[in-house]
Amino acid sequence: MVSVAIMGHGVVGSGVAEILTTHKQKLFASIGEEVYVKKILDLREFPDSPLADRFTKNFDDIINDLEIRVVVEVMGGLTPAYDYVKRCLKAGKSVVTSNKELVAAHGAELLAIAKEENANFLFEASVGGGIPIIRPMNQCLVANIVDEIAGILNGTTNFILTKMIEDGMQFDDALKLAQELGFAERNPAADIEGHDACRKICILASLAFGKHVYPEWVHTEGITKITLDDVKYAEAFSSVIKLIGKVKRLKDGKIDIIVAPMLVPNKSQLANIDYEFNGIMVRGDCTGDVVFYGKGAGKLPTASAVVADVIDCCKHLKTRKYLYWTDGNGKNIIPFEQSVSAMYVRAQGDDIISKAQKLFGDVTVITKDNSPENEKAFVVKEMPYGEFTDKTAALESDGVKVLSSIRIGDL
Amino acid sequence: MVSVAIMGHGVVGSGVAEILTTHKQKLFASIGEEVYVKKILDLREFPDSPLADRFTKNFDDIINDLEIRVVVEVMGGLTPAYDYVKRCLKAGKSVVTSNKELVAAHGAELLAIAKEENANFLFEASVGGGIPIIRPMNQCLVANIVDEIAGILNGTTNFILTKMIEDGMQFDDALKLAQELGFAERNPAADIEGHDACRKICILASLAFGKHVYPEWVHTEGITKITLDDVKYAEAFSSVIKLIGKVKRLKDGKIDIIVAPMLVPNKSQLANIDYEFNGIMVRGDCTGDVVFYGKGAGKLPTASAVVADVIDCCKHLKTRKYLYWTDGNGKNIIPFEQSVSAMYVRAQGDDIISKAQKLFGDVTVITKDNSPENEKAFVVKEMPYGEFTDKTAALESDGVKVLSSIRIGDL
Repeated sequence: MVSVAIMGHGVVGSGVAEILTTHKQKLFASIGEEVYVKKILDLREFPDSPLADRFTKNFDDIINDLEIRVVVEVMGGLTPAYDYVKRCLKAGKSVVTSNKELVAAHGAELLAIAKEENANFLFEASVGGGIPIIRPMNQCLVANIVDEIAGILNGTTNFILTKMIEDGMQFDDALKLAQELGFAERNPAADIEGHDACRKICILASLAFGKHVYPEWVHTEGITKITLDDVKYAEAFSSVIKLIGKVKRLKDGKIDIIVAPMLVPNKSQLANIDYEFNGIMVRGDCTGDVVFYGKGAGKLPTASAVVADVIDCCKHLKTRKYLYWTDGNGKNIIPFEQSVSAMYVRAQGDDIISKAQKLFGDVTVITKDNSPENEKAFVVKEMPYGEFTDKTAALESDGVKVLSSIRIGDL
Repeated sequence: MVSVAIMGHGVVGSGVAEILTTHKQKLFASIGEEVYVKKILDLREFPDSPLADRFTKNFDDIINDLEIRVVVEVMGGLTPAYDYVKRCLKAGKSVVTSNKELVAAHGAELLAIAKEENANFLFEASVGGGIPIIRPMNQCLVANIVDEIAGILNGTTNFILTKMIEDGMQFDDALKLAQELGFAERNPAADIEGHDACRKICILASLAFGKHVYPEWVHTEGITKITLDDVKYAEAFSSVIKLIGKVKRLKDGKIDIIVAPMLVPNKSQLANIDYEFNGIMVRGDCTGDVVFYGKGAGKLPTASAVVADVIDCCKHLKTRKYLYWTDGNGKNIIPFEQSVSAMYVRAQGDDIISKAQKLFGDVTVITKDNSPENEKAFVVKEMPYGEFTDKTAALESDGVKVLSSIRIGDL
């Protein structure tokens, strides 16, 4: 019997408790031992839970219990999760978390402590919810050098964008609907400003390239400025607008990492990933493109990924999984101004295209029905983002108002 | 240092040798030891290989070498692969194979020997080439009860069907092109008759449901009877024709397993998996649908999956991976006549629709341009396949010639 504790009894935590209880037989068959939920930490009361007798409000009941070998952290946020997880690892307990904020902010430090204490620190559920991605990347793709990772990593924004694309809803209405359906939080900033997707691409980039990438080093744009006009022009360009987290290895060994809305060509495997689903493309030098697709959030999908990690910990109580990266200093990341991309531009004014051609050279004009006479949309060829912003500034000086500019995703 | 042997130096085998040589540093970082290719078994001569000094034509050089702990079998076929693999496992060596024929025919026996000898028998590359599927199913989805697996498991047939759909090519021309491009063998029977896909769904079904499913128990249809007319009617029905391997858990615990061409709705994630790509959907009770997508064959994708297994064996020389199923007797599989599906029918004759309605009840008529006057296509509602064939026989007795019938994939 392996005793585990669960810190947090919210959506994911209660799902973890549920799966550990309802799938007992399957789990036993997999590890040859029973997994016993000994303690659940939560400040709230759950008198009707079948596990009511296991609840505690005191972290000491977990940290001081030598029988508890595996601790699940599903509280979310950094306080007190960071402190608790650190203390559990230092006590030699393995920790499983779904907390992307924690892994993105302190992953390297926590992995180093786990290594020192010969414990495991696993976080499959922190990216892609129920989609297996961390483990396949770490294990199955071990024989590959990863060249690029690109993904739709946030279900809330993907739901909003899909509603704009499929049903012609305005951003605000789609957001409101997402909130009503429980896909978006009351305060949706972390999702719609791109911070959640940023944490996830940071975790994947750290894993793939071996050095921690902190979110604050990553240029991050959300989807709040995306309009229905942009969605329609994208359609006319055989593309859909998706919020993409992307990291690419450059020839000099540095990485180009960004979170931003992009025009994704319809033929891309990521273009058909709609609503609350997530999809992650990993480009390996041997495998080529491998895409993982599924529900990126939700109680049971996320909880099942947590439980898979718990099982892995139970099987490896004495050995460590080789999941590891070192701390980073950001020097392996190019400034986003150097990041090269083709760009979509929507602008207002007179003689827009001829003015744009003077600055950008050849541009591809996109036309759609019912556009105002003085509005044009076009795509400019690949160039560093800094050069692009210089040239759009010049375009504005020439009397053209740039209404929006979005990267073209080469996916 | 861990010494390994590679049996077979064909496309995949030479890829394995190449990756083990070119990715030395990455592999070392992952396992903390060097992987050394000590022997390569092949009857042919490879004097120009950088590993020319390691070749042998004698299996005894491998089986008798106590230093060789991991053996890669990439010869293909059953003879002598089956005998060699069995002897290696009995000698306590771990075996990694990409040979789906071997795993589908003898998986349960070989897994049992591996268990007895405390060795590993791994075969990630046998399904989906470079796509991680066996390991994610076994590990990440351990907290799920699998309800259904459906996949495009054969790149050759998917290439042919895509060419028919996208370019309007006839089957024979598309097959010839696939052969020219190296996607199809000179004798394409195993692919186009569905046997290759059958082996793969058997492996996935055995893994998911714990009992070996032998290919001869599975109703298997290929794509040789698919015509351009069917492709066009499918298009008019917002679907594409794909060769699908599918297994589903029924309420009574039995399974419904089949390989057949199906009309897949355009909105399905499997509909957009084109050309030589494979895609596999795993429906878990907790995760919901998870889809894995990538190149299902090819030298380096397949070889990288083999190498990932080799690494896993090297990390687990003393412990076994819990990858296991027992032998089966077929009693958990329902006869294909009981398998329930809606059906597409194309037929020739007079008053087809009214005659069909008399037998099938309501049918959905599909129309397309340029169809002969006396040809109709329609979809009948879900029923057991046995009932469907009885009714089509009655339809034929009523003077209607059934030109083709294809299952509707509920995917």
